[in-house]
Amino acid sequence: MEMPIDMQHQQMGYDRAATMFSPEGHLLQVEYAEKAVRLGSSSIGMVCSDGVFILADKRNDDVLVVPDSAQKIYEIDNHIIASVAGLVADARVLIEKVQVLAQQNRMTYDSPIEPELIIKEISTLKQQFTQYGGARPFGVSVMVAGIQNHKGRLYNSDITGNYYEYFANAVGEDDTEIKDILREKYKKDLTLKKGVDLAVEAMKKVKGDKFKIEKFELSYLENKKEEIKRVEGKKILEM
Amino acid sequence: MEMPIDMQHQQMGYDRAATMFSPEGHLLQVEYAEKAVRLGSSSIGMVCSDGVFILADKRNDDVLVVPDSAQKIYEIDNHIIASVAGLVADARVLIEKVQVLAQQNRMTYDSPIEPELIIKEISTLKQQFTQYGGARPFGVSVMVAGIQNHKGRLYNSDITGNYYEYFANAVGEDDTEIKDILREKYKKDLTLKKGVDLAVEAMKKVKGDKFKIEKFELSYLENKKEEIKRVEGKKILEM
Amino acid sequence: MEMPIDMQHQQMGYDRAATMFSPEGHLLQVEYAEKAVRLGSSSIGMVCSDGVFILADKRNDDVLVVPDSAQKIYEIDNHIIASVAGLVADARVLIEKVQVLAQQNRMTYDSPIEPELIIKEISTLKQQFTQYGGARPFGVSVMVAGIQNHKGRLYNSDITGNYYEYFANAVGEDDTEIKDILREKYKKDLTLKKGVDLAVEAMKKVKGDKFKIEKFELSYLENKKEEIKRVEGKKILEM
Amino acid sequence: MEMPIDMQHQQMGYDRAATMFSPEGHLLQVEYAEKAVRLGSSSIGMVCSDGVFILADKRNDDVLVVPDSAQKIYEIDNHIIASVAGLVADARVLIEKVQVLAQQNRMTYDSPIEPELIIKEISTLKQQFTQYGGARPFGVSVMVAGIQNHKGRLYNSDITGNYYEYFANAVGEDDTEIKDILREKYKKDLTLKKGVDLAVEAMKKVKGDKFKIEKFELSYLENKKEEIKRVEGKKILEM
Amino acid sequence: MEMPIDMQHQQMGYDRAATMFSPEGHLLQVEYAEKAVRLGSSSIGMVCSDGVFILADKRNDDVLVVPDSAQKIYEIDNHIIASVAGLVADARVLIEKVQVLAQQNRMTYDSPIEPELIIKEISTLKQQFTQYGGARPFGVSVMVAGIQNHKGRLYNSDITGNYYEYFANAVGEDDTEIKDILREKYKKDLTLKKGVDLAVEAMKKVKGDKFKIEKFELSYLENKKEEIKRVEGKKILEM
Amino acid sequence: MEMPIDMQHQQMGYDRAATMFSPEGHLLQVEYAEKAVRLGSSSIGMVCSDGVFILADKRNDDVLVVPDSAQKIYEIDNHIIASVAGLVADARVLIEKVQVLAQQNRMTYDSPIEPELIIKEISTLKQQFTQYGGARPFGVSVMVAGIQNHKGRLYNSDITGNYYEYFANAVGEDDTEIKDILREKYKKDLTLKKGVDLAVEAMKKVKGDKFKIEKFELSYLENKKEEIKRVEGKKILEM
Amino acid sequence: MEMPIDMQHQQMGYDRAATMFSPEGHLLQVEYAEKAVRLGSSSIGMVCSDGVFILADKRNDDVLVVPDSAQKIYEIDNHIIASVAGLVADARVLIEKVQVLAQQNRMTYDSPIEPELIIKEISTLKQQFTQYGGARPFGVSVMVAGIQNHKGRLYNSDITGNYYEYFANAVGEDDTEIKDILREKYKKDLTLKKGVDLAVEAMKKVKGDKFKIEKFELSYLENKKEEIKRVEGKKILEM
Repeated sequence: MEMPIDMQHQQMGYDRAATMFSPEGHLLQVEYAEKAVRLGSSSIGMVCSDGVFILADKRNDDVLVVPDSAQKIYEIDNHIIASVAGLVADARVLIEKVQVLAQQNRMTYDSPIEPELIIKEISTLKQQFTQYGGARPFGVSVMVAGIQNHKGRLYNSDITGNYYEYFANAVGEDDTEIKDILREKYKKDLTLKKGVDLAVEAMKKVKGDKFKIEKFELSYLENKKEEIKRVEGKKILEM
Repeated sequence: MEMPIDMQHQQMGYDRAATMFSPEGHLLQVEYAEKAVRLGSSSIGMVCSDGVFILADKRNDDVLVVPDSAQKIYEIDNHIIASVAGLVADARVLIEKVQVLAQQNRMTYDSPIEPELIIKEISTLKQQFTQYGGARPFGVSVMVAGIQNHKGRLYNSDITGNYYEYFANAVGEDDTEIKDILREKYKKDLTLKKGVDLAVEAMKKVKGDKFKIEKFELSYLENKKEEIKRVEGKKILEM
Repeated sequence: MEMPIDMQHQQMGYDRAATMFSPEGHLLQVEYAEKAVRLGSSSIGMVCSDGVFILADKRNDDVLVVPDSAQKIYEIDNHIIASVAGLVADARVLIEKVQVLAQQNRMTYDSPIEPELIIKEISTLKQQFTQYGGARPFGVSVMVAGIQNHKGRLYNSDITGNYYEYFANAVGEDDTEIKDILREKYKKDLTLKKGVDLAVEAMKKVKGDKFKIEKFELSYLENKKEEIKRVEGKKILEM
Repeated sequence: MEMPIDMQHQQMGYDRAATMFSPEGHLLQVEYAEKAVRLGSSSIGMVCSDGVFILADKRNDDVLVVPDSAQKIYEIDNHIIASVAGLVADARVLIEKVQVLAQQNRMTYDSPIEPELIIKEISTLKQQFTQYGGARPFGVSVMVAGIQNHKGRLYNSDITGNYYEYFANAVGEDDTEIKDILREKYKKDLTLKKGVDLAVEAMKKVKGDKFKIEKFELSYLENKKEEIKRVEGKKILEM
Repeated sequence: MEMPIDMQHQQMGYDRAATMFSPEGHLLQVEYAEKAVRLGSSSIGMVCSDGVFILADKRNDDVLVVPDSAQKIYEIDNHIIASVAGLVADARVLIEKVQVLAQQNRMTYDSPIEPELIIKEISTLKQQFTQYGGARPFGVSVMVAGIQNHKGRLYNSDITGNYYEYFANAVGEDDTEIKDILREKYKKDLTLKKGVDLAVEAMKKVKGDKFKIEKFELSYLENKKEEIKRVEGKKILEM
Repeated sequence: MEMPIDMQHQQMGYDRAATMFSPEGHLLQVEYAEKAVRLGSSSIGMVCSDGVFILADKRNDDVLVVPDSAQKIYEIDNHIIASVAGLVADARVLIEKVQVLAQQNRMTYDSPIEPELIIKEISTLKQQFTQYGGARPFGVSVMVAGIQNHKGRLYNSDITGNYYEYFANAVGEDDTEIKDILREKYKKDLTLKKGVDLAVEAMKKVKGDKFKIEKFELSYLENKKEEIKRVEGKKILEM
Repeated sequence: MEMPIDMQHQQMGYDRAATMFSPEGHLLQVEYAEKAVRLGSSSIGMVCSDGVFILADKRNDDVLVVPDSAQKIYEIDNHIIASVAGLVADARVLIEKVQVLAQQNRMTYDSPIEPELIIKEISTLKQQFTQYGGARPFGVSVMVAGIQNHKGRLYNSDITGNYYEYFANAVGEDDTEIKDILREKYKKDLTLKKGVDLAVEAMKKVKGDKFKIEKFELSYLENKKEEIKRVEGKKILEM
């Protein structure tokens, strides 16, 4: 009886270094790092007719932790937010780098940075860590939402350092199921209010009994102004 | 019973580093990386009597993704485009490097860069990553099309960092079958219109029932002007 | 009979380098380093209505050792203290780095550093040692307590370089049991006096017969002033 | 029964690094790289009474490829040409380096570089890559032909970085058979015309039915002038 | 029958690099290096009411060796001495580094360096060699004794780079037994004379028949002056 | 039955790196490199009453090779020559380095370099490549002959980087047998003519039927002048 | 039956790198390098009432070698000599480094360097090569003899980089037996003449029938002057 191809490749050690291709042309270490992303907590991003938002499961409901410090939605600049799935410490490094980039852009050009430049920088860093030896890939997927020319934009950078722009997206645990719901129900003319309702509904559906609105946080940006608004727990439902 | 030579070499570990020759003089890691290219989506490039074009299968038909961000055809300069097959994140790194090179050429010499210098730079970078340790080869094949002295030029750089100029070429999934069709039907006096028809016909043939014109994008350059034109989906058929 | 997944991964060597992901997306070397933290001596930190404190088990009761030199609570600046669990030599390196950072802040801005910047610096260093090869992760968890704008703040940085802010926290041996007690009994309006009573009570409960107040030290900061107060042994009970 | 010495050494791993001697004093990785050269397409170089030439099998007869871009004979300077056998991407790197060297020589000394300095530079680079770790040897043999003081010179640098000057030489596929013919029939007073006839005859003999003059290219230099002449396909026969 | 956990970890290779944690969170290479310390010759340090001393077993009683050159007690500055256990060559490197540091302190601040800065520098160096790859940990334990503000101070830095201040301490062979005696009999009001008597008594007890006063050396510092006094062999008993 | 100690050490891998001692204190990689020297072609050097010479077997009798380019005797300066045995490409690197050194000496001190400085430089380079990792030892033995103060000097540097001065010496294939003959028949008052006769006689004896004077070259220096004389083939016999 | 502990450690690979401790706290690679020293030729050093000397077995009695070049006693400065045992090429590197150091001392301070600084420099270099990876330890023991303030001094630096001062010492083959004789018969008031007699006698005894005075060389320094005297073969007996 033949060993399955996966186990054969593990036996042969093709999965020991990010810099090694398997005989089928895969980078197995990068694929393993993707598992770390799937272990991360879920978040949903969405572009709406009047803005863009990210809804995130903070997951952490330890009463000993100060809620603000367990936020899953990072502020990169006045007009850009991000959520992550995977190794949180890795994410912090990337987030801090692009926070600096955003500040430098304001200083140098006296204007807000384009959200795409943020996701591009994150992606370039991630690609390098999949190609050079002596380090491991960043174990995070990063979703960036922002306002550009009074319109919402949403991006996601995966483990390999590839990124796309999205109308709506989900990362972390249960992302496949959530995205199926979004594909079915998302419409481009949803308002922020309707969009958040849809995101909450999707979370409820995939989490089932484990769903608790208290564990969620929401950050949104309206098309008209550079101002991040943050809502937590039950207040999300009343938005 | 003897083990096949391939498996013997895997057992012996000749395929673990890009910097190791097998007893037959092969670089197995580089050959594995070529598999990543074959896993990539297909594109066809063609030099025509009145210009040059690339037709690419975007493959991604996720309604959540903003179509423009999933484009497979990159703009390197006003007169040069490129498509890739393989690891998209790797490709982005190479594309960004030559975009800068093209800009520098305009700044330094006040003239558009020759398309061959673009493919040369990409190829030199790729060769280095197959010879030096501490990193893996770039897992991409890059096809570059451009206008030089009012004539179309088409190049392709393979995994090893070798490149040729082509009249017509295909990379990615099913490239062998597509090239067989091109060899049979391509003629140097095809107009852009006829050339695109041939490319679409070839894609249809190899993709069979899976062919959907909606998933394709086309970029072309006319001999007379430095201007990239982009057409998507059904509009390709009406060109 | 199948080998348990843990042992399989050990056999396959996924746990030999901090820079390698296991097929499940884990960094096993980092998880092993966490064991070093669990082997460390316990300490409890708590934010109270009138200040913040850390109570630490010095563990060392060797009469040959000068007690002051076996202190588990480090002074980082006049308004910031820290305790650690894990490899003490590793901890000293991190503590010395942030002591310098705190002094530089006073010199440059003529104001005390925010405690969060201290934990951020520690965490960034720790993350790097989990991502780059050629070194091992820092084998310590660091708890930082300080006063900012006349209010107590408490942070903890784990092995991966992730950190949260806490109302109350425990690190080292028996941390899980201690935190369960804190979750049950901690209230935000506890005074330093009441808070220390709770911490001592928790230590007593988890240590059982091995509890000796002589082995403990307490450092606290009152909201009103930048001054670290230190109490040892039985004096802790009389505070 | 004893294993053959070759297989024993493979089992023991003496052939895994270019920097390791086998117990018999061989560098096996370098010997494997030589196999890559034998897999390369054939070319013949010859010093004649009135000049020097290289005849090369382009091998590539893909109608999709622009013939000029598949040339196997490189121009290094107005008076120096080269052909290669082995990994073409490796060759390009070496060729580009010596093209620059030749230009620098013209700029610095206002005179054409000696062909021997070209082969020396190539050989020194190749030797280094067989001695230092962290990279693999260049997998190419390079044949350089040029005019110095109105006389033709021909050199060949092997995989190890050793080089000799030749009256006539062959590299790549079937080199041994071709050289046997040259040894028998080459004479120093052959004219370019007669020399090319001899080279074509040798190619015909070793290729047999597979011989097609259409796949060959010829470059030659006359003793009297610094000017490379290039002839392809049937025109070679009419020279 | 199960293999003991120690042997299992050796089989699995967790003990091959100083930068690797075992599944239990141990650094086995560091623990092995500690064995080198236990193989070293014994020395005792003690803080007395009127000074501080180190008594060391020179062990070397080869009549061919010049006694002064086999001294186990190093002079770091006029007011600081040290003894070591473990790899003597490693110790010399550390001692020379801090001798320079002490001199620099006198030059820069025109005052004697604090003994704690000496042990801190030694410990920081040692920690680094347990965390970074490409080198091995220092295989020595260093005991430093000195006078600060007219009072004796005694420190010991272990293999990991951790250090404590001691009233009395022992390193090297039989350290555990010696420390048990010290714990029982040491008192803070011992004079140098009484202290040395206690140290000699402890050495006698643990060495038994192998004890020879001729093999011992003693260095001491009186609280009142910066002057190292050295006594050897039988003169120690007459002090 | 016990495995022979050699094979045991190969099994254990002590022969895989130039930087590893075997349990018997040998550097096996260096010993293997010596085999490469024994595979090299033979040469004999000799100090005579009126000069010094090297007689070398060019071995290469390929009629396609230009004889001058296959010379085994290198000119390092007007008064110094060298022959090598082993990897010729390695030798070239060393020879080129000391050619530069000799030129620099003339430029800086306006006088010919001492032959011993040449062999010293070669030996120092060779020693380093046996001690540092990341490269392999130079696989050559180098014999240097020169004139200093009107007297002939002869040196040989072995694989390890050790060198001696010789009256007469042989390297390469059959060196042991040749040296036995020299030991028996060499006398210090031999003239160049007699010395060459002896060298040819020794070559004849060890090569037997394979001896062909056509394959030999001779270079000699007379005590009185800085001038290298070169003789080939039958002319050697008529010297 | 249990494998002996030595073989177990070899099986486990603790002896493959100079930077690895065995579970018993040994550095096995360093211990193997010591074997290279034991394979070296013998020399004896001795401090006498009127000077200091080294007597060395040149071992090399090849009549083809120029005797001066096979000297085992190196001159480091006018007042310092050294002999070595082990890898001669390694020794030369160390000797050349300290020859430079001695010259620099004369240039900078206009006075002869202390012999101890010479042995210290050698020892520091040797220690580093036992602690850092990427190179192997120096495989030599170095004995240094010199005159300081009109008195003879003798030092020996072992493989680990540790050194002692000696009255009399032996290194290389049979060192243990020679030292036993020296321990028995050496007296501090021996004159150079008597000391050399003792050294020759010791050599005779341990070498037995293989002893030949022709193979020995002697270098000595008288207390009164900075002048190395060298005597060879039978003249040693007549000193």
